[in-house]
Amino acid sequence: MLQSQLFVKTTKQAPKHEKSINAQLLVRAGFIDKLAAGIYTYLPLGVQVFKKIEKIIQEEIETIGGQKVLMPALHPREKWEITGRWQVSEMFKLKGRFGKEYGLGWTHEEIITPLAKKNIHSYKDLPCYIYQIQTKMRDEPRAKSGLLRGREFTMKDLYSFHTEQKDLDNYYEKVKKAYFKIFKRCGLGAQTYLTLALGGTFSKYSHEFQTITPAGEDIIYICQKCNLAINKEIKSEFTICPECQGKKFKMVKAIETGNIFKLGTKYSEPFNFKFRAQNGQEKLVVMGCYGIGLDRLIGAIVEIYHDKQGIIWPKEVASHQIHLIQVENSRQVKASAEKLYKNLKKNNIQVLYDDRKDKTPGEKFAEADLIGIPLRIVISERVLKKNSVELKRRDEKKVKLIKIKNLLQSLNF
Amino acid sequence: MLQSQLFVKTTKQAPKHEKSINAQLLVRAGFIDKLAAGIYTYLPLGVQVFKKIEKIIQEEIETIGGQKVLMPALHPREKWEITGRWQVSEMFKLKGRFGKEYGLGWTHEEIITPLAKKNIHSYKDLPCYIYQIQTKMRDEPRAKSGLLRGREFTMKDLYSFHTEQKDLDNYYEKVKKAYFKIFKRCGLGAQTYLTLALGGTFSKYSHEFQTITPAGEDIIYICQKCNLAINKEIKSEFTICPECQGKKFKMVKAIETGNIFKLGTKYSEPFNFKFRAQNGQEKLVVMGCYGIGLDRLIGAIVEIYHDKQGIIWPKEVASHQIHLIQVENSRQVKASAEKLYKNLKKNNIQVLYDDRKDKTPGEKFAEADLIGIPLRIVISERVLKKNSVELKRRDEKKVKLIKIKNLLQSLNF
Repeated sequence: MLQSQLFVKTTKQAPKHEKSINAQLLVRAGFIDKLAAGIYTYLPLGVQVFKKIEKIIQEEIETIGGQKVLMPALHPREKWEITGRWQVSEMFKLKGRFGKEYGLGWTHEEIITPLAKKNIHSYKDLPCYIYQIQTKMRDEPRAKSGLLRGREFTMKDLYSFHTEQKDLDNYYEKVKKAYFKIFKRCGLGAQTYLTLALGGTFSKYSHEFQTITPAGEDIIYICQKCNLAINKEIKSEFTICPECQGKKFKMVKAIETGNIFKLGTKYSEPFNFKFRAQNGQEKLVVMGCYGIGLDRLIGAIVEIYHDKQGIIWPKEVASHQIHLIQVENSRQVKASAEKLYKNLKKNNIQVLYDDRKDKTPGEKFAEADLIGIPLRIVISERVLKKNSVELKRRDEKKVKLIKIKNLLQSLNF
Repeated sequence: MLQSQLFVKTTKQAPKHEKSINAQLLVRAGFIDKLAAGIYTYLPLGVQVFKKIEKIIQEEIETIGGQKVLMPALHPREKWEITGRWQVSEMFKLKGRFGKEYGLGWTHEEIITPLAKKNIHSYKDLPCYIYQIQTKMRDEPRAKSGLLRGREFTMKDLYSFHTEQKDLDNYYEKVKKAYFKIFKRCGLGAQTYLTLALGGTFSKYSHEFQTITPAGEDIIYICQKCNLAINKEIKSEFTICPECQGKKFKMVKAIETGNIFKLGTKYSEPFNFKFRAQNGQEKLVVMGCYGIGLDRLIGAIVEIYHDKQGIIWPKEVASHQIHLIQVENSRQVKASAEKLYKNLKKNNIQVLYDDRKDKTPGEKFAEADLIGIPLRIVISERVLKKNSVELKRRDEKKVKLIKIKNLLQSLNF
């Protein structure tokens, strides 16, 4: 991608009305634009990050058998009346021209359950795992935390269907592992804790994945022995850790970046969703649901990975792998930079190439730090004389001089 | 993909309340599911087709410089008041909890124009091409044609920004060519005609891309000399073809699968979107907009490519390249089919493998015809004795016997 052609410019000033660090940096660096409170446009660089995260989630969920669907955002009122959740105040509601009433989906149990019922009839059709990555809307009372709490957002929601609780329990453990892989690949492995939280009708507790950050709205207590965390909302129920009987906890602020939930028959009951068991009996299908918010993940990454100069993207979610900067406009520098750009692209390396002629080196470096691509390569007259380029990691101060002919092998993606 | 694990089953009966051929076949074959009138879920096979079309569009639009963004579906009322389009009856409207009013986006001029205004200030920033592939909603009075006319649908919408009309005119011609490539790759090249249609405030005419099908809701007149078509709505203005002065026209039914529009300053005026020209003067930005409906494209493909047995997907948009069918369950047939499945996948060929044990060959063939993957490979005891498999194109009756060792090179994707 040529930076000279990039639609969006970075800005030095923090945007008005944005208090969260993630929104301030993402807006300034040109990843997102605010349309209204809790409602953002993803700009070209933001779309690249979004796609990386989408790909990670898709790969890990398909590894545990998830089949991808795409459900609508417009939901007819009737489906939500069946579970009594039409009244939920977070649901945006609207009327069509013939009086038809719709809610805007903020979750999809009321849609996936009758859909699964049409296709699952026998124990032979189970277990079954269905997921989507889809735009959701929620009438959020507090939409002040940038991408951490939006009115419009993209979720990965996975639903699992089982013949019995034991099978759900097994799959639930698989999802836990897949989630940890996702957080690890997004750079949040070290900061994200499996957290015991409030359950529902069919399970006393659920699990959240909480990522530690001062921007978090939740408080969790991390067991210092086994690392299980407990959400403050249920902490009073535990004097010792239910996992390892540990007694020491560390209290921290965190943001819920994922949740997994044993639904049991909570939704199969109202939809009368049954299957024929091997012995011929009709039984209710046992369900689980598993969510991750993509925008919130991006917001959490920026809250954690930044410094005064800007964002520091973890490798696998950065919009580009390399920021190539040409600091002078002499014919030789330009030709070398263009040649390197083409060569990197040919090797399937994603490069943002700062080919702009009207910026000083200082301006270019400041913008590169703000945008936060993990590796910076600088080409100048001075280093070209040594047949070299300067290589710098965004998260280090050190600048390395690398011979151009050795560059590709030293990158080692 | 293993067909035994596929979430959705095909059905023999046409669904009630579905009158259009596209919805009947897509529902029966398990590509989509109807949630409400004009509102569909894409099922696993449908998601694969959707992704193929998305990829084709993305590639062709990025070839002509399109930069991808993702704008929201929830639009604040204020933006639409600026152009006076808040009153449009097709717009779904809703109120948030603090009285905030939103419309659901059915197009994005009111969003992209102020966004572009924030980033485009000088002639140096122009031209600029921004697009997205995004979910739109429209309060459609007639939602009876399956995917051809939905209340929720996915559009590719591209917006172009120029210093002057001439530059817009040039880009407009580029988009025309890109659109023809898209239709060709989707299998609709021969049926799709550039069609003169009603313009707006700033251009007397616009262009539609109309795809001939009896399911179409439009009537177009195709010039028999140069192939330019004219929409019935403006046909009375022309006695001869404005392109070649031809006098003979053929009247056909067609569906609008794309449209391109010279907006001029229609939106830059109300948003006061100006740039500084090379001579220092401030001038209004000249705009164009270009849409393609992905769902409608899929619907049109099915309306055109089907027979009594089912869908006949064009090669580049099929959910899979090969439908591999194991017709017996002997150890030898199963082992050979599994080996071939793995080998094809290793060669990056997308395969739906019918590994089901409880279906007769006749049932499997009927389902394969309904699903409509372009190439069918059958493995049975009989042909394995000749170290061969049976190869059949969905659009031909002829069955070829091919030696397994020659199969890969004869596939020739």
